[in-house]
Amino acid sequence: MRMYDIIMKKRNGHELSEEEISFAVQGFTDGSIPDYQISALMMAVYFQGMNEKETIALTMAMAHSGDLLDLSAVEGIKVDKHSTGGVGDKTSLVVGPMVAALGVPVAKMSGRGLGHTGGTIDKLESISGFQTTLSTENFIENVNKIHMSIVGQTANLAPADKKLYALRDVTATVDNLSLIASSIMSKKIASGADAIVLDVKTGSGAFMKTEKDAIDLAREMVKIGTGAGKDTIAVVSNMDQPLGNMVGNALEVKEAVETLNGNGPEDLMELSYVLGAYMLIAAGKADSLEEGMEKLRETIENKSALNKFREFIEAQGGDGAVVENTDLLPKASIVMDIISEEAGFIKRIDTSEIGMVSLILGGGRETKDSEIDLSVGIELKKKIGDRIEKEEVIATIYANDLERLKAARERLDLAYEISVTPVNKQQLVKWVISKNGAKKY
Amino acid sequence: MRMYDIIMKKRNGHELSEEEISFAVQGFTDGSIPDYQISALMMAVYFQGMNEKETIALTMAMAHSGDLLDLSAVEGIKVDKHSTGGVGDKTSLVVGPMVAALGVPVAKMSGRGLGHTGGTIDKLESISGFQTTLSTENFIENVNKIHMSIVGQTANLAPADKKLYALRDVTATVDNLSLIASSIMSKKIASGADAIVLDVKTGSGAFMKTEKDAIDLAREMVKIGTGAGKDTIAVVSNMDQPLGNMVGNALEVKEAVETLNGNGPEDLMELSYVLGAYMLIAAGKADSLEEGMEKLRETIENKSALNKFREFIEAQGGDGAVVENTDLLPKASIVMDIISEEAGFIKRIDTSEIGMVSLILGGGRETKDSEIDLSVGIELKKKIGDRIEKEEVIATIYANDLERLKAARERLDLAYEISVTPVNKQQLVKWVISKNGAKKY
Repeated sequence: MRMYDIIMKKRNGHELSEEEISFAVQGFTDGSIPDYQISALMMAVYFQGMNEKETIALTMAMAHSGDLLDLSAVEGIKVDKHSTGGVGDKTSLVVGPMVAALGVPVAKMSGRGLGHTGGTIDKLESISGFQTTLSTENFIENVNKIHMSIVGQTANLAPADKKLYALRDVTATVDNLSLIASSIMSKKIASGADAIVLDVKTGSGAFMKTEKDAIDLAREMVKIGTGAGKDTIAVVSNMDQPLGNMVGNALEVKEAVETLNGNGPEDLMELSYVLGAYMLIAAGKADSLEEGMEKLRETIENKSALNKFREFIEAQGGDGAVVENTDLLPKASIVMDIISEEAGFIKRIDTSEIGMVSLILGGGRETKDSEIDLSVGIELKKKIGDRIEKEEVIATIYANDLERLKAARERLDLAYEISVTPVNKQQLVKWVISKNGAKKY
Repeated sequence: MRMYDIIMKKRNGHELSEEEISFAVQGFTDGSIPDYQISALMMAVYFQGMNEKETIALTMAMAHSGDLLDLSAVEGIKVDKHSTGGVGDKTSLVVGPMVAALGVPVAKMSGRGLGHTGGTIDKLESISGFQTTLSTENFIENVNKIHMSIVGQTANLAPADKKLYALRDVTATVDNLSLIASSIMSKKIASGADAIVLDVKTGSGAFMKTEKDAIDLAREMVKIGTGAGKDTIAVVSNMDQPLGNMVGNALEVKEAVETLNGNGPEDLMELSYVLGAYMLIAAGKADSLEEGMEKLRETIENKSALNKFREFIEAQGGDGAVVENTDLLPKASIVMDIISEEAGFIKRIDTSEIGMVSLILGGGRETKDSEIDLSVGIELKKKIGDRIEKEEVIATIYANDLERLKAARERLDLAYEISVTPVNKQQLVKWVISKNGAKKY
């Protein structure tokens, strides 16, 4: 088999066989196929596309390019939840304790990555003493004992995907549906879950700007997951404004704790119930969305989810008292209220700009080696549709550096659009995509 | 400027600016832009194409990526002739002496390259004592004194093209008209001619299999040459059978000498007159094709072209006696006549197969470092349309190795198709493409 022929075949619009795709992925991973041939192939894929069979073959080849996490020692049906990424998304910290409280094993190995805030692992490190590095034995022991453990990624999961993504990132071949879907799904499949619940974000703060693109991506991922023998379902949710009110690492842990205490913002609560309910259904713990949501609501009311969160934190060496007193989390030295200069209704929040503000404050990683400032961030006091008066606080910035604060503030001003006429609230959960197709929520 | 943005822009179908193209070419040449970004760009160009402005910008950027041959010390209008490559094409050895005999300076710096036979430089090395390495001073001195010098390429001409071609060759991005045209023209422009006459081959032995593709390539190259301020004209000529009767290095020199002696095959003679006449027109030595051809015919009749060839050989240290006695050229140790098993008319000659036969015999380079056997080759005794009797000789193979002879013979048998009904002779010169458009010849 020659890589040249594989490139030519795809360039000419033909279907690649499983063997050809696996040859390319293995050769790229072990270095026997040079990156310049793979980047040419990726550009050919961008133009000619890949069908379902090819996309599944690519996903499986990448999933099998390194370690496969063996969760067979974990009892019960392992359900993984994955979000395509948005601003202020702390649902893992809410959904995890809720479903674990109902006996669904949450065994999450999480990367750090780049972005406007850190990943779930970084957020958890805001909690004093919390350990993100556990041996695989301890990790599985914890899941079996308390049904929940989240650790940093130590295993070499889907290295082909990592290498391929880095190459696509610099050759303008990221935005192809099959490639995006197989990248996400290869990691999910390598990390050993039995079922997968996907949260595909759409809007100004999401990678998929339009609802159609998000639905297409969701369909593609559900097809791959189903093809790989994993029960897979996807929700398309709104990211035209941040989720909840807090953006920033410690700030998001604080909001998660408040939510588990029953005082969370409505949108975060709703999305957590929907995603959690689909996880319960996949795990065989509920028969319907309504039943699942009802069970989850109980875990908030009877504090079992909050207690589970405390148990989880303490099992990984963290200070569990944080669930009663969020003042124990790291705090920024400068707090600045941003005042609205006009009255009206919030019409638009440029969500990726809010993400940029968090990054500028130091809350995220610009490069792999950046240090994260866990305490900084933004608190949104108003969301789309809210009435605001002149000189009312629209948002609060938490910072540790005056220069960064200045730059963040200028940028934040531009992220809002205020209308004199009333504006409708936005619908949060928009679509549910299962192997049977897409349904409006 | 970022390479990423340039790839993205082309991928999305937009026109690249001269600055962007020059940035990419320079960065690729000096190694600051990695090959995986360039191969992605090439694949994007394959799908989105380049317009005339972009193609000219790419050509000029590649032409200026290394040395520019300075021929300003050569007196008169320098006209370069270039063929896109075919089997048995020895026109340079015929046209050069003819036009030089009429005072047109022929200053050719020629590469060796890969192929079924060697390049012009390799062919000339069949002549005992012939030196292909001259200092630039001697080269120009020879041209000024006797109007003709052909030397091996020593200057670093269009290194970007060389590097880019090598990358395209392994990433399935060779067959794009703009890229092919700019590759050829960048070298022509770097080698300092004032005017360029192109011979674009079409047919089974050519890179461009169809007449339409050949015309398109010719148009593209004429546009580039004209855009670069060089008087440029192209002829589209038939390569559905080898040109002349000889294929092989020393064999082609022999045929060129016979042609200069007035005993050449009709097709080689015709093409040499046509290409030579356009060179005379470009050099201001003839006003029309007819006048040019008439002048060239005289150089054959009065032996001035033959004498010029001798003068040229001797000026570069070669044995000029070869123009009177071609037995002085290297000879193969085995000569085998191939007998036709059927009677009829030659319908088809798979010309690229004839090329392969020459390569198998050792007449060409398979890799850059292959040694060429100058004495081997094929003599075609019959061309398309010719009548052949059963057991008549269809071709003669010249070889030095029995194993190679065996392989060559088997392949040669398959290259011919014989018809029981008469077959028309083929038209040789098909189209003439100038800046004013394409005209049937």
